[in-house]
Amino acid sequence: MTDEAELKTVIIQWLKAIRDEDHVGIRADHDPDILMFDVPPSFSSRGLDAYMATWETFFAWQAKPVQFDLHDIVITAGENLAFATATGQCCDLSSGEKVDLEFRLTMGFRRHDGRWWIVREHHSLPAVS
Amino acid sequence: MTDEAELKTVIIQWLKAIRDEDHVGIRADHDPDILMFDVPPSFSSRGLDAYMATWETFFAWQAKPVQFDLHDIVITAGENLAFATATGQCCDLSSGEKVDLEFRLTMGFRRHDGRWWIVREHHSLPAVS
Repeated sequence: MTDEAELKTVIIQWLKAIRDEDHVGIRADHDPDILMFDVPPSFSSRGLDAYMATWETFFAWQAKPVQFDLHDIVITAGENLAFATATGQCCDLSSGEKVDLEFRLTMGFRRHDGRWWIVREHHSLPAVS
Repeated sequence: MTDEAELKTVIIQWLKAIRDEDHVGIRADHDPDILMFDVPPSFSSRGLDAYMATWETFFAWQAKPVQFDLHDIVITAGENLAFATATGQCCDLSSGEKVDLEFRLTMGFRRHDGRWWIVREHHSLPAVS
């Protein structure tokens, strides 16, 4: 497989794990030093435990079954470093009603020990105008 | 200079150009295909003209002289690819009052033609809880 194909597989498996609420699967390709900038507070989250806590917040406010998908995934890969951008959608209940949210995502990856690891995630909505 | 030092210089020059409202300087190290996810809408902006339009929006709502600085800059560089994360602050007037805003930033870079180019920027605030 090319690096782009390997990275696409990492992302697709991660998306499936989120939709399945598979907590082991969600973190399977994450570096212990993952840095997460998420949509809800906290402002930033460092390390796997803090990263997984952001998914607890997410699952608490999602319509079930969980909807979480990406479109426009663009992967840019170098020898041992890569990043990806995408836009995506989920279905949020935090306002008391079902609201389809469109978000932006940037991910950073490093390759070590013969495989790719997710080291950065940045999820966001534009600010309310 | 190491790649990290070169990239740090790119970022520091860009910060100074923003504070100086130097439109030529702001885009000096940006790839023509820059993809921007910004704090205010638009949802995403592609290409240099759209990228510079995001700075028009920014300058319209900033206290003057412009405050825009980053802390916690972490640069991860490979042979021809790099990314950086940071947190930063600016001073926003869009609510009618001066509000110090803390934001998160992820940047993606590619090296070609003997130098580094910014190809991805993702600025965000956490959503209001």
